[in-house]
Amino acid sequence: MFNFGSDKKMHPLIQHIQKITGNHEIGDEAILPFFETGAFKKKGILQEEGKRCLLYFFVVKGCLRLFFNDHNGAEQTLQFSMENWWMTDMDAFRSERQSGYTIQALEPTEVLTITHKSYELMLTKFPVMEHYFRLVYERAYAASLLRIRMISRMPKDEFYDVFQSKYPAFMQRIPQKILASFLGFTPEYLSELRKKKVKRKDK
Amino acid sequence: MFNFGSDKKMHPLIQHIQKITGNHEIGDEAILPFFETGAFKKKGILQEEGKRCLLYFFVVKGCLRLFFNDHNGAEQTLQFSMENWWMTDMDAFRSERQSGYTIQALEPTEVLTITHKSYELMLTKFPVMEHYFRLVYERAYAASLLRIRMISRMPKDEFYDVFQSKYPAFMQRIPQKILASFLGFTPEYLSELRKKKVKRKDK
Repeated sequence: MFNFGSDKKMHPLIQHIQKITGNHEIGDEAILPFFETGAFKKKGILQEEGKRCLLYFFVVKGCLRLFFNDHNGAEQTLQFSMENWWMTDMDAFRSERQSGYTIQALEPTEVLTITHKSYELMLTKFPVMEHYFRLVYERAYAASLLRIRMISRMPKDEFYDVFQSKYPAFMQRIPQKILASFLGFTPEYLSELRKKKVKRKDK
Repeated sequence: MFNFGSDKKMHPLIQHIQKITGNHEIGDEAILPFFETGAFKKKGILQEEGKRCLLYFFVVKGCLRLFFNDHNGAEQTLQFSMENWWMTDMDAFRSERQSGYTIQALEPTEVLTITHKSYELMLTKFPVMEHYFRLVYERAYAASLLRIRMISRMPKDEFYDVFQSKYPAFMQRIPQKILASFLGFTPEYLSELRKKKVKRKDK
Protein backbone atom coordinates (compact mmCIF):
# COMPACT_ATOMS: atom_id res chain seq x y z
CA MET A 1 0.00 0.00 0.00
CA PHE A 2 1.33 3.44 -0.90
CA ASN A 3 0.18 6.82 0.25
CA PHE A 4 0.29 9.11 -2.77
CA GLY A 5 -0.76 12.21 -0.76
CA SER A 6 1.15 15.35 -1.64
CA ASP A 7 2.26 15.82 1.97
CA LYS A 8 4.31 12.63 1.85
CA LYS A 9 7.85 12.79 0.53
CA MET A 10 8.81 10.64 -2.42
CA HIS A 11 9.46 6.93 -2.05
CA PRO A 12 13.17 6.00 -1.79
CA LEU A 13 13.02 4.20 -5.16
CA ILE A 14 11.72 7.32 -6.90
CA GLN A 15 14.37 9.44 -5.16
CA HIS A 16 16.97 6.98 -6.43
CA ILE A 17 15.63 7.07 -10.00
CA GLN A 18 15.66 10.88 -9.97
CA LYS A 19 19.18 10.97 -8.54
CA ILE A 20 20.65 8.47 -11.02
CA THR A 21 18.90 9.76 -14.15
CA GLY A 22 18.60 13.48 -13.34
CA ASN A 23 14.98 13.19 -14.51
CA HIS A 24 12.63 14.79 -11.97
CA GLU A 25 9.40 14.32 -13.85
CA ILE A 26 8.94 10.72 -12.85
CA GLY A 27 6.86 10.28 -9.68
CA ASP A 28 5.50 7.69 -7.25
CA GLU A 29 2.23 7.33 -9.17
CA ALA A 30 3.85 6.16 -12.40
CA ILE A 31 6.27 3.59 -11.04
CA LEU A 32 5.14 2.22 -7.68
CA PRO A 33 2.00 0.45 -8.99
CA PHE A 34 4.34 -2.06 -10.72
CA PHE A 35 5.65 -3.18 -7.32
CA GLU A 36 4.47 -4.96 -4.19
CA THR A 37 5.96 -4.34 -0.77
CA GLY A 38 7.54 -6.96 1.47
CA ALA A 39 8.83 -6.98 5.05
CA PHE A 40 11.14 -9.65 6.43
CA LYS A 41 12.49 -10.43 9.87
CA LYS A 42 16.18 -10.95 10.49
CA LYS A 43 17.18 -14.30 8.89
CA GLY A 44 13.96 -14.34 6.82
CA ILE A 45 14.21 -16.01 3.40
CA LEU A 46 13.19 -13.97 0.32
CA GLN A 47 14.25 -16.52 -2.29
CA GLU A 48 15.14 -20.17 -1.88
CA GLU A 49 17.90 -21.92 -3.86
CA GLY A 50 16.34 -24.38 -6.32
CA LYS A 51 12.92 -22.64 -6.37
CA ARG A 52 11.83 -20.64 -9.43
CA CYS A 53 13.15 -17.10 -9.39
CA LEU A 54 10.06 -14.93 -9.87
CA LEU A 55 10.97 -11.70 -8.08
CA TYR A 56 13.47 -8.88 -8.21
CA PHE A 57 14.08 -7.02 -4.92
CA PHE A 58 14.81 -3.36 -4.24
CA VAL A 59 16.01 -2.74 -0.68
CA VAL A 60 14.10 0.13 0.94
CA LYS A 61 15.57 -0.48 4.39
CA GLY A 62 17.79 -3.23 5.75
CA CYS A 63 20.32 -5.63 4.32
CA LEU A 64 20.21 -8.79 2.19
CA ARG A 65 22.74 -11.42 1.28
CA LEU A 66 22.86 -13.85 -1.66
CA PHE A 67 24.46 -17.26 -1.06
CA PHE A 68 24.54 -20.88 -2.19
CA ASN A 69 25.33 -24.17 -0.48
CA ASP A 70 28.54 -25.73 -1.72
CA HIS A 71 29.35 -29.45 -2.06
CA ASN A 72 30.19 -29.59 1.64
CA GLY A 73 26.94 -27.92 2.68
CA ALA A 74 28.73 -24.70 3.64
CA GLU A 75 26.97 -21.41 2.82
CA GLN A 76 28.99 -19.36 0.37
CA THR A 77 28.01 -15.67 0.31
CA LEU A 78 28.61 -13.85 -3.00
CA GLN A 79 26.75 -10.53 -2.63
CA PHE A 80 25.21 -8.08 -0.20
CA SER A 81 22.53 -5.44 -0.86
CA MET A 82 21.66 -2.51 1.33
CA GLU A 83 19.37 0.52 0.88
CA ASN A 84 18.87 1.49 -2.81
CA TRP A 85 20.46 -1.68 -4.17
CA TRP A 86 18.78 -4.32 -6.29
CA MET A 87 19.09 -8.07 -5.81
CA THR A 88 18.06 -11.25 -7.59
CA ASP A 89 19.64 -14.20 -9.42
CA MET A 90 19.58 -12.16 -12.64
CA ASP A 91 20.24 -15.12 -14.90
CA ALA A 92 17.32 -17.07 -13.41
CA PHE A 93 15.00 -14.02 -13.13
CA ARG A 94 15.36 -13.23 -16.84
CA SER A 95 13.94 -16.63 -17.76
CA GLU A 96 11.98 -17.37 -14.54
CA ARG A 97 14.10 -20.47 -14.05
CA GLN A 98 15.28 -22.11 -10.79
CA SER A 99 17.40 -19.81 -8.67
CA GLY A 100 20.98 -20.90 -8.07
CA TYR A 101 21.00 -18.86 -4.86
CA THR A 102 19.20 -18.19 -1.61
CA ILE A 103 18.46 -14.56 -0.66
CA GLN A 104 18.19 -13.88 3.07
CA ALA A 105 17.62 -10.81 5.27
CA LEU A 106 20.54 -10.04 7.58
CA GLU A 107 18.50 -7.40 9.43
CA PRO A 108 14.77 -6.62 9.61
CA THR A 109 14.34 -5.60 5.97
CA GLU A 110 11.75 -3.78 3.84
CA VAL A 111 11.78 -4.36 0.09
CA LEU A 112 9.88 -3.59 -3.07
CA THR A 113 9.31 -6.67 -5.24
CA ILE A 114 8.57 -6.86 -8.95
CA THR A 115 7.78 -9.81 -11.22
CA HIS A 116 9.54 -10.25 -14.56
CA LYS A 117 6.34 -9.47 -16.44
CA SER A 118 5.80 -6.20 -14.52
CA TYR A 119 9.49 -5.33 -14.91
CA GLU A 120 9.28 -5.68 -18.70
CA LEU A 121 5.97 -3.80 -18.82
CA MET A 122 7.38 -0.93 -16.74
CA LEU A 123 10.45 -0.70 -19.00
CA THR A 124 8.28 -0.63 -22.14
CA LYS A 125 5.94 1.99 -20.72
CA PHE A 126 8.57 4.27 -19.17
CA PRO A 127 11.73 4.83 -21.25
CA VAL A 128 13.27 6.64 -18.27
CA MET A 129 13.41 3.24 -16.57
CA GLU A 130 15.50 1.82 -19.44
CA HIS A 131 17.82 4.76 -18.86
CA TYR A 132 17.83 4.15 -15.08
CA PHE A 133 18.56 0.43 -15.33
CA ARG A 134 21.18 0.95 -18.05
CA LEU A 135 23.03 3.22 -15.60
CA VAL A 136 22.47 0.88 -12.62
CA TYR A 137 23.87 -2.11 -14.55
CA GLU A 138 26.73 -0.09 -16.01
CA ARG A 139 27.83 0.65 -12.44
CA ALA A 140 27.21 -2.89 -11.25
CA TYR A 141 29.21 -4.25 -14.18
CA ALA A 142 32.10 -1.84 -13.52
CA ALA A 143 32.06 -2.85 -9.84
CA SER A 144 32.10 -6.54 -10.76
CA LEU A 145 35.32 -6.10 -12.75
CA LEU A 146 36.99 -4.58 -9.68
CA ARG A 147 35.55 -7.38 -7.58
CA ILE A 148 37.00 -10.03 -9.90
CA ARG A 149 40.36 -8.25 -9.74
CA MET A 150 40.18 -8.20 -5.94
CA ILE A 151 39.27 -11.80 -5.34
CA SER A 152 41.43 -13.37 -8.01
CA ARG A 153 44.54 -11.22 -8.03
CA MET A 154 45.01 -9.44 -4.70
CA PRO A 155 46.69 -10.66 -1.53
CA LYS A 156 44.02 -11.31 1.12
CA ASP A 157 44.86 -8.38 3.39
CA GLU A 158 44.88 -5.94 0.44
CA PHE A 159 41.43 -7.24 -0.61
CA TYR A 160 40.25 -6.57 2.96
CA ASP A 161 41.63 -2.99 2.87
CA VAL A 162 40.04 -2.15 -0.50
CA PHE A 163 36.71 -3.65 0.53
CA GLN A 164 36.73 -1.75 3.81
CA SER A 165 37.50 1.59 2.15
CA LYS A 166 34.84 1.12 -0.56
CA TYR A 167 32.07 -0.35 1.61
CA PRO A 168 32.60 0.75 5.22
CA ALA A 169 28.89 0.24 6.06
CA PHE A 170 29.12 -3.45 5.21
CA MET A 171 31.91 -3.91 7.73
CA GLN A 172 29.69 -2.47 10.46
CA ARG A 173 26.47 -4.25 9.68
CA ILE A 174 27.40 -7.73 8.50
CA PRO A 175 28.01 -10.59 10.97
CA GLN A 176 31.68 -11.68 11.16
CA LYS A 177 31.08 -15.25 10.05
CA ILE A 178 29.21 -14.19 6.91
CA LEU A 179 31.69 -11.44 6.08
CA ALA A 180 34.52 -13.97 6.36
CA SER A 181 32.70 -16.32 3.96
CA PHE A 182 32.22 -13.45 1.48
CA LEU A 183 35.89 -12.50 1.62
CA GLY A 184 36.94 -16.13 1.29
CA PHE A 185 38.59 -16.10 4.72
CA THR A 186 38.12 -18.36 7.70
CA PRO A 187 36.42 -16.49 10.60
CA GLU A 188 39.67 -16.94 12.56
CA TYR A 189 41.75 -15.31 9.82
CA LEU A 190 39.34 -12.35 9.63
CA SER A 191 39.47 -11.92 13.40
CA GLU A 192 43.31 -11.96 13.35
CA LEU A 193 43.38 -9.45 10.50
CA ARG A 194 41.03 -7.07 12.31
CA LYS A 195 43.16 -7.21 15.46
CA LYS A 196 46.28 -6.44 13.42
CA LYS A 197 44.59 -3.45 11.71
CA VAL A 198 43.37 -2.05 15.04
CA LYS A 199 46.87 -2.41 16.52
CA ARG A 200 48.37 -0.54 13.57
CA LYS A 201 45.89 2.32 14.03
CA ASP A 202 46.79 2.56 17.73
CA LYS A 203 50.46 3.12 16.99
CA MET B 1 34.10 4.65 -43.85
CA PHE B 2 30.79 2.86 -44.29
CA ASN B 3 29.03 1.89 -47.44
CA PHE B 4 25.34 2.54 -46.93
CA GLY B 5 24.37 1.11 -50.33
CA SER B 6 21.27 -1.05 -50.30
CA ASP B 7 23.16 -3.98 -51.82
CA LYS B 8 25.38 -4.27 -48.75
CA LYS B 9 24.16 -6.32 -45.81
CA MET B 10 23.82 -4.69 -42.44
CA HIS B 11 26.83 -3.98 -40.28
CA PRO B 12 27.44 -6.63 -37.57
CA LEU B 13 26.68 -4.06 -34.84
CA ILE B 14 23.25 -3.31 -36.35
CA GLN B 15 22.57 -7.03 -36.72
CA HIS B 16 23.47 -7.44 -33.05
CA ILE B 17 21.19 -4.57 -31.97
CA GLN B 18 18.31 -6.02 -33.96
CA LYS B 19 18.90 -9.49 -32.57
CA ILE B 20 19.12 -8.38 -28.92
CA THR B 21 16.25 -5.86 -28.97
CA GLY B 22 13.96 -7.46 -31.55
CA ASN B 23 13.67 -3.97 -33.09
CA HIS B 24 14.24 -4.12 -36.85
CA GLU B 25 13.61 -0.48 -37.63
CA ILE B 26 17.05 0.69 -36.58
CA GLY B 27 19.56 0.77 -39.44
CA ASP B 28 23.18 1.49 -40.31
CA GLU B 29 22.44 5.14 -41.15
CA ALA B 30 21.18 6.04 -37.69
CA ILE B 31 23.84 4.42 -35.55
CA LEU B 32 27.13 4.03 -37.45
CA PRO B 33 27.87 7.77 -37.77
CA PHE B 34 28.50 7.84 -33.99
CA PHE B 35 31.44 5.45 -34.47
CA GLU B 36 34.89 5.37 -36.04
CA THR B 37 36.52 2.20 -37.32
CA GLY B 38 39.84 0.80 -36.17
CA ALA B 39 42.06 -2.07 -37.32
CA PHE B 40 44.83 -3.58 -35.21
CA LYS B 41 47.51 -6.13 -35.87
CA LYS B 42 48.07 -9.09 -33.58
CA LYS B 43 49.52 -7.77 -30.30
CA GLY B 44 48.46 -4.19 -31.18
CA ILE B 45 47.52 -1.97 -28.22
CA LEU B 46 44.06 -0.32 -28.23
CA GLN B 47 44.26 1.19 -24.74
CA GLU B 48 47.26 1.65 -22.48
CA GLU B 49 47.13 1.23 -18.68
CA GLY B 50 47.54 4.64 -17.00
CA LYS B 51 46.43 6.64 -20.08
CA ARG B 52 43.01 8.33 -20.12
CA CYS B 53 40.23 5.99 -21.17
CA LEU B 54 38.47 7.80 -24.03
CA LEU B 55 37.09 4.96 -26.14
CA TYR B 56 34.66 2.06 -25.96
CA PHE B 57 35.32 -0.82 -28.37
CA PHE B 58 32.90 -3.10 -30.22
CA VAL B 59 34.62 -6.13 -31.76
CA VAL B 60 33.61 -6.58 -35.40
CA LYS B 61 36.20 -9.30 -36.08
CA GLY B 62 39.01 -10.69 -33.97
CA CYS B 63 39.74 -10.99 -30.28
CA LEU B 64 40.80 -8.59 -27.49
CA ARG B 65 42.05 -9.08 -23.98
CA LEU B 66 42.02 -6.73 -20.99
CA PHE B 67 44.90 -7.01 -18.49
CA PHE B 68 46.94 -5.12 -15.91
CA ASN B 69 50.51 -5.39 -14.65
CA ASP B 70 50.67 -6.62 -11.07
CA HIS B 71 53.25 -5.66 -8.40
CA ASN B 72 55.68 -8.19 -9.86
CA GLY B 73 55.30 -6.87 -13.39
CA ALA B 74 53.32 -9.95 -14.47
CA GLU B 75 50.40 -9.40 -16.87
CA GLN B 76 47.10 -10.43 -15.30
CA THR B 77 44.32 -11.03 -17.85
CA LEU B 78 40.77 -10.43 -16.55
CA GLN B 79 38.61 -10.41 -19.69
CA PHE B 80 38.38 -11.43 -23.33
CA SER B 81 36.13 -10.01 -26.05
CA MET B 82 35.34 -11.58 -29.38
CA GLU B 83 32.90 -10.74 -32.19
CA ASN B 84 29.83 -8.76 -30.97
CA TRP B 85 31.28 -8.07 -27.52
CA TRP B 86 32.05 -4.70 -26.03
CA MET B 87 35.21 -3.80 -24.12
CA THR B 88 36.57 -0.88 -22.11
CA ASP B 89 37.54 -0.04 -18.53
CA MET B 90 33.91 0.94 -17.84
CA ASP B 91 34.69 2.73 -14.59
CA ALA B 92 37.35 4.91 -16.26
CA PHE B 93 35.36 5.41 -19.50
CA ARG B 94 32.34 6.79 -17.63
CA SER B 95 34.47 9.63 -16.25
CA GLU B 96 37.23 9.71 -18.91
CA ARG B 97 39.78 8.97 -16.19
CA GLN B 98 43.02 6.95 -16.41
CA SER B 99 42.47 3.36 -17.43
CA GLY B 100 43.44 0.72 -14.90
CA TYR B 101 43.91 -1.75 -17.75
CA THR B 102 45.62 -2.33 -21.07
CA ILE B 103 43.53 -3.61 -23.98
CA GLN B 104 45.40 -5.62 -26.59
CA ALA B 105 44.50 -7.49 -29.81
CA LEU B 106 45.20 -11.23 -29.64
CA GLU B 107 44.49 -11.62 -33.37
CA PRO B 108 44.27 -9.15 -36.27
CA THR B 109 41.20 -7.28 -35.04
CA GLU B 110 38.62 -4.86 -36.46
CA VAL B 111 36.67 -2.69 -34.05
CA LEU B 112 34.19 0.14 -33.91
CA THR B 113 35.18 2.86 -31.44
CA ILE B 114 33.01 5.45 -29.74
CA THR B 115 33.87 8.35 -27.43
CA HIS B 116 31.94 8.91 -24.21
CA LYS B 117 30.36 12.07 -25.60
CA SER B 118 29.13 10.26 -28.75
CA TYR B 119 27.95 7.32 -26.64
CA GLU B 120 25.80 9.61 -24.46
CA LEU B 121 24.52 11.50 -27.51
CA MET B 122 23.57 8.27 -29.27
CA LEU B 123 21.74 7.03 -26.17
CA THR B 124 19.83 10.30 -25.85
CA LYS B 125 18.90 10.38 -29.51
CA PHE B 126 17.96 6.70 -29.90
CA PRO B 127 15.97 5.17 -27.02
CA VAL B 128 16.39 1.75 -28.64
CA MET B 129 20.07 2.03 -27.71
CA GLU B 130 19.16 2.46 -24.02
CA HIS B 131 17.15 -0.71 -24.39
CA TYR B 132 20.02 -2.47 -26.18
CA PHE B 133 22.65 -1.54 -23.62
CA ARG B 134 20.34 -2.31 -20.69
CA LEU B 135 20.04 -5.85 -22.05
CA VAL B 136 23.77 -6.10 -22.85
CA TYR B 137 24.72 -5.05 -19.31
CA GLU B 138 22.05 -7.22 -17.72
CA ARG B 139 23.69 -10.22 -19.39
CA ALA B 140 27.20 -9.06 -18.60
CA TYR B 141 26.22 -8.53 -14.98
CA ALA B 142 24.61 -11.98 -14.75
CA ALA B 143 27.73 -13.52 -16.31
CA SER B 144 29.97 -11.71 -13.84
CA LEU B 145 28.14 -13.29 -10.88
CA LEU B 146 28.81 -16.75 -12.33
CA ARG B 147 32.40 -15.70 -12.96
CA ILE B 148 32.83 -14.62 -9.33
CA ARG B 149 31.36 -17.93 -8.21
CA MET B 150 33.75 -19.81 -10.47
CA ILE B 151 36.96 -18.08 -9.49
CA SER B 152 36.29 -17.76 -5.80
CA ARG B 153 34.42 -20.92 -4.92
CA MET B 154 35.17 -23.68 -7.42
CA PRO B 155 38.00 -26.20 -7.48
CA LYS B 156 40.38 -25.32 -10.34
CA ASP B 157 39.54 -28.23 -12.61
CA GLU B 158 35.79 -27.62 -12.22
CA PHE B 159 36.34 -23.94 -13.16
CA TYR B 160 38.19 -25.17 -16.26
CA ASP B 161 35.31 -27.50 -17.22
CA VAL B 162 32.62 -24.81 -16.79
CA PHE B 163 34.66 -22.26 -18.70
CA GLN B 164 35.31 -24.71 -21.52
CA SER B 165 31.65 -25.67 -21.87
CA LYS B 166 30.45 -22.02 -21.78
CA TYR B 167 33.16 -20.51 -24.01
CA PRO B 168 34.61 -23.21 -26.27
CA ALA B 169 35.78 -20.63 -28.84
CA PHE B 170 38.05 -18.98 -26.27
CA MET B 171 39.82 -22.28 -25.67
CA GLN B 172 40.61 -22.56 -29.37
CA ARG B 173 41.71 -19.02 -30.07
CA ILE B 174 43.56 -17.81 -26.98
CA PRO B 175 47.28 -18.52 -26.47
CA GLN B 176 47.97 -21.03 -23.67
CA LYS B 177 50.02 -18.66 -21.54
CA ILE B 178 47.34 -15.96 -21.54
CA LEU B 179 44.54 -18.46 -20.93
CA ALA B 180 46.45 -19.83 -17.94
CA SER B 181 46.84 -16.30 -16.53
CA PHE B 182 43.10 -15.70 -16.96
CA LEU B 183 42.20 -18.94 -15.19
CA GLY B 184 44.70 -18.21 -12.42
CA PHE B 185 46.74 -21.31 -13.30
CA THR B 186 50.42 -21.69 -14.11
CA PRO B 187 50.95 -22.60 -17.79
CA GLU B 188 52.32 -25.96 -16.57
CA TYR B 189 49.17 -26.71 -14.56
CA LEU B 190 46.95 -25.84 -17.56
CA SER B 191 49.03 -28.08 -19.81
CA GLU B 192 48.77 -30.99 -17.31
CA LEU B 193 45.01 -30.47 -16.97
CA ARG B 194 44.53 -30.50 -20.75
CA LYS B 195 46.50 -33.74 -21.09
CA LYS B 196 44.38 -35.35 -18.36
CA LYS B 197 41.13 -34.27 -20.07
CA VAL B 198 42.27 -35.59 -23.46
CA LYS B 199 43.23 -38.91 -21.89
CA ARG B 200 39.84 -39.22 -20.24
CA LYS B 201 38.13 -38.62 -23.59
CA ASP B 202 40.27 -41.34 -25.24
CA LYS B 203 39.10 -43.96 -22.77
